[in-house]
Amino acid sequence: MTERYDELKARLAEIHDLRRAQEILFWDQTVMMPPGGGPARGAQVTTLDRIAHEKFVSDEIGKLLDDLAGSEQELGYDSDEASLIRTTRRDWEKLRRVPADLAADITGAAAEAHDVWAKAREDSDYELFLPHLEKAVDLKRRYIDCFDGYDEPYDVLLDDYEPGMKTPEVRAVFDELKAELVPLIAEIGSVEGDDAFMAGPWPVDKQHEYSLEIIRRFGFDESFARLDLTVHPFAASSGTQDIRLTTRYKDEDITSIFTAMHECGHGLYEHGVSPTLERTPLCHGVSSALHESQSRMWENIVGRSRPFWNHFYPSFQATFPEAVGDVDQERFYRAINRVKPSYIRVDADEATYNLHIILRFELEQEILAGTIGLKELPEAWNARFEEYLGIPVPNDSLGVLQDVHWSSGGFGYFPTYSLGNIISVQIWEKVLSELPDLPDQFEQGEFGQLHDWLRTRLYSLGRKFTPQETLERVVGGPIDAAPYIRYLKEKLGALAAA
Amino acid sequence: MTERYDELKARLAEIHDLRRAQEILFWDQTVMMPPGGGPARGAQVTTLDRIAHEKFVSDEIGKLLDDLAGSEQELGYDSDEASLIRTTRRDWEKLRRVPADLAADITGAAAEAHDVWAKAREDSDYELFLPHLEKAVDLKRRYIDCFDGYDEPYDVLLDDYEPGMKTPEVRAVFDELKAELVPLIAEIGSVEGDDAFMAGPWPVDKQHEYSLEIIRRFGFDESFARLDLTVHPFAASSGTQDIRLTTRYKDEDITSIFTAMHECGHGLYEHGVSPTLERTPLCHGVSSALHESQSRMWENIVGRSRPFWNHFYPSFQATFPEAVGDVDQERFYRAINRVKPSYIRVDADEATYNLHIILRFELEQEILAGTIGLKELPEAWNARFEEYLGIPVPNDSLGVLQDVHWSSGGFGYFPTYSLGNIISVQIWEKVLSELPDLPDQFEQGEFGQLHDWLRTRLYSLGRKFTPQETLERVVGGPIDAAPYIRYLKEKLGALAAA
Repeated sequence: MTERYDELKARLAEIHDLRRAQEILFWDQTVMMPPGGGPARGAQVTTLDRIAHEKFVSDEIGKLLDDLAGSEQELGYDSDEASLIRTTRRDWEKLRRVPADLAADITGAAAEAHDVWAKAREDSDYELFLPHLEKAVDLKRRYIDCFDGYDEPYDVLLDDYEPGMKTPEVRAVFDELKAELVPLIAEIGSVEGDDAFMAGPWPVDKQHEYSLEIIRRFGFDESFARLDLTVHPFAASSGTQDIRLTTRYKDEDITSIFTAMHECGHGLYEHGVSPTLERTPLCHGVSSALHESQSRMWENIVGRSRPFWNHFYPSFQATFPEAVGDVDQERFYRAINRVKPSYIRVDADEATYNLHIILRFELEQEILAGTIGLKELPEAWNARFEEYLGIPVPNDSLGVLQDVHWSSGGFGYFPTYSLGNIISVQIWEKVLSELPDLPDQFEQGEFGQLHDWLRTRLYSLGRKFTPQETLERVVGGPIDAAPYIRYLKEKLGALAAA
Repeated sequence: MTERYDELKARLAEIHDLRRAQEILFWDQTVMMPPGGGPARGAQVTTLDRIAHEKFVSDEIGKLLDDLAGSEQELGYDSDEASLIRTTRRDWEKLRRVPADLAADITGAAAEAHDVWAKAREDSDYELFLPHLEKAVDLKRRYIDCFDGYDEPYDVLLDDYEPGMKTPEVRAVFDELKAELVPLIAEIGSVEGDDAFMAGPWPVDKQHEYSLEIIRRFGFDESFARLDLTVHPFAASSGTQDIRLTTRYKDEDITSIFTAMHECGHGLYEHGVSPTLERTPLCHGVSSALHESQSRMWENIVGRSRPFWNHFYPSFQATFPEAVGDVDQERFYRAINRVKPSYIRVDADEATYNLHIILRFELEQEILAGTIGLKELPEAWNARFEEYLGIPVPNDSLGVLQDVHWSSGGFGYFPTYSLGNIISVQIWEKVLSELPDLPDQFEQGEFGQLHDWLRTRLYSLGRKFTPQETLERVVGGPIDAAPYIRYLKEKLGALAAA
C-alpha cells in the first residue's frame, strides 16, 4: 500500500506543480506581463493545462485509485491519506467523463467570446453577443450530457464550483432569503444620507499604505504574500507560503480598502491550509462558496462593522483628511453600509448584492430548462430586476451584459457568491458563541484570535472533506439562511431606525 | 513530410512552452516572489524541467528526426524548416547521451553547493567549499565521459555554451589577447585620475528613470518589455514580445545605467528573433558568446563611447547635479573608462575584465587535466592573478571564491564573456564599414539604424545556424581577436596619452 500510495502522491504532486505554475503564469499575465506577451503566454498556459489534464485523467491514476480502495477503509476517513484518495477519485471520475474535444471546444469558445462580450457590453449591443451566448449554452448542454444520475441538469454545473451541492438546496435558501430581502430593501433602500464625501479625493498611494496596514492586522505578511495592482482584483497562490493578492485604486473611490480585505480573506484561507497537504490536490480552499465566505467574513462582517471602525477610524481620518477630515465616524459608517439598489452587481451593497445573484441563478435555470429563450433574455432580466430591486434597467450594459461569466460558460458560479454570504454569518455566529469578546478585540485592532479560530477549524482542512462535510464540521449543521437574515435585519434595521 | 514535420514542430512547441514557463517562474522567483515561496517554486521548476527533458529526449522525437532526414536536404540549408530539424537533431543527440541520474546528480549537487559557497565566500573559507568543488569537478568528469569524439575534454564543456567551439580556438585568441593586454594594462593601469565624484550620491529613483530613458532610445519599449529590480541582474523572456530586464541600484554607484544597457542588449537580441521562429527551439540567441557580444555592444561600444556621451551628458548632468554638477564631460568619460586592476571580475573595467576571464579559462583546463590539484587552487589563482594584473590577492573571498559559477558546475562558461567582447568589436567594425555615420547618429541620440542592422543581420537568425556559421554570416569570417585589440589600444591609448 505504501508504495502505491507514494506513487499516487508523486503523480499528483507533479500535476499540482503544473497547476500552481499555471496560477503564477496567470497572475503574471494580469499583473506584470507587457501587453505583447499575450500570444506566447496563451500558448504556455494551454500547454501546461493540457499536460496536467492528460496526466490526471490517465489510466495509471485510475489503476492506483483502484488498488488503493481497500487500504482507504483502513486508513480512517479523517486521515490525510484516505482524504487524498477519496477526493482524487471524485475528481478523476468527474474529469474522465468530459471528452478532450469538448473541453477544448469550451475553452476555445470562451476565448473567442470574451472580446465580443467586452465590445457588446461597451456598446450595449446584446445582438452582437447573442450568437456566442447561444454557443456557450449549447456547449454547456453537451457538457451536462456527459454526466448521469443527477436530478436537475443545473446540479451538474453547480457541482463544478460547489461539489455535492444540489439545486433544490440552493433554491430553498435563496427563496427564503428573497422573501425577506425584497421587502427589507424596499424599506431600507429609501433611507437617504449625504454621502457626497465618498467621492474623495483618496490619494492612491495612501490607499495602498492603508490597505496594507489593515490586512497586516488580519495576518497578511510580506514573508509569504504580496499585494499588487490589476484591473479585476483576485487572489492567487503558488503554495501556502506564496500568496498573491491584487487590488485597484481610483482617486475618487475608497472601495480599495474593502477589496484588500476581501482578497486577504481568500489569501488567508489558502495560506492556512495544513502544511501536510502541500503539493497535493487537497491544498486549496474546498469550494467557491466556502472561499467566498472567507472573503466576505473579512470584508463585511469584520471590515464593515462598528468595532472595526471604532479602532481604525481615527487613523483613517488622519490618513485621508481631505475626504473625511470633517466627516464623523457615524456618517462614514452609514455611508459604507448604505443600502441602495443599483445596476451593477460588483458595485452593489452587502444586502442588494444577493438579489443580483438570485436573479442570475433563476435565469440560468430557466435558460437551461428552455423556458426562457436567449433572444428574450434581456426582457426577462429587466422585468425581474425591477421586480426585485425596484428600479428599471436603462440598457443592457447595465443589465444582462454586465458580467463576464456567461461569456466563458461559467454557468453555476453565480450562486456561490450569495452562498458565501450566508455561510459567512453561519460561521461568524459559531465563532462568536465560542469567543464572545471578539468585537472587543476588534476595537483594539486585534484580529489574531479570529484568524486562529478560522485557520484551525476551517482553513487547515483544505479539500480533505466535501464542502458539506466541511461546513458541518465548522458550524455543526448544513447551510442555513436564517443567521444571515438575522444579521442583515439587525444591522440594517439599526441603520434605518436611527 | 509535411505531416511529420508538423508533428515535430508541435512537440517542440510544447517543450518550448514548458521552457519559457520555467524562465518566467525563475524571473518571478528572483524579482517578485515572497521569500516563503522558495520550496514550492523549487518543486514547480523541477517538475517543468523534468517533463520538458523527458519529452525532448523521447524516442518519438528521434524517430521524427530520422523520418525527416531525407526531406531536410530538399528544403535547403537556410530554410527555417531544415534549420529546425538540423539544430534539433544536434540538441537531441547531445542530451540523449546524459543519463537522467547523472543530470539529477548535477542539479542536486549544485543546489547543495550554492549555500555552502555563499558562506565560504562570506568567510573567505576555501576549505569549507573544497569538498563541494571536488564533487562538482568529479561530476563534470562523469559528464564528459558521456561523450566521445572530442579532441580535448574541455571541448565538451565549452560546447554547452558555445556549440561547436573548440578549446584550441579559444586558446589561440586568448593567447593573442593576453600577450597584448598584460603590457597594455601595466602601462595604462597606472594612469591616475580624481574619480571621487563617482561615489555619488546618485538618487536611485533618478537612476531608474535615466536607465529607462537611455534604453528606450536603444529600442526598449514597455509594450514588449519590463525593467525590474533584483540582486544579480539578468535578462529573461517569455517570447520575443515579452522581455524581462532586471537591474539594481545603489545610491553610491552609477553602474546601473551600464547594467541597464547591458541587459537591454541581451533583451534586444531575444526580441529581434524572427517571428517565424516563435515557439520553436530556434527562438533564442545562438550562444553565450554571441549573446554577450550584444550586451557588450550596447554597454561598452555604444554606452561608454564619446559620441554617446556627447548626446547624453548634458541631461545626465542635469539629472544628477549633486554628483556631476561640476564635473566636466571629459572627466566623467575618463572615469567610466578608467583602467584599473581590481579583484572582483564583475566590477572590472572593460580591459582588465578579459584577464580575469583568461585566468579562469586556464585554471579550468588545468583542473580538468589534473595538472592543478583542487587543494592548491587558491595558490595557483593568486600567483597567476598577480602575474596578469599586477596586484596581490589579499584573501580567497576576493580571489578564487568570488564567482558562483563553479558551485553549480558551470565550467566552460567563463570564456564566453571575453569571446563576447571580441566578437562585439568584430561586428562593430563590420557595421561601421557599412554605416560610417553611426557615431554622428549617436551624437544625435539616434540608435535605430544600429538596432535595425543588428536585428536584420544577427538577431533575426535566432538559433538557425551554429554560432560559427552565424558569425561568418554577420562579419564574413571566424572569430578574430585583432579588431578587439585594435579597439582597446586605440581607445585606451588615447586616454593614456591625453
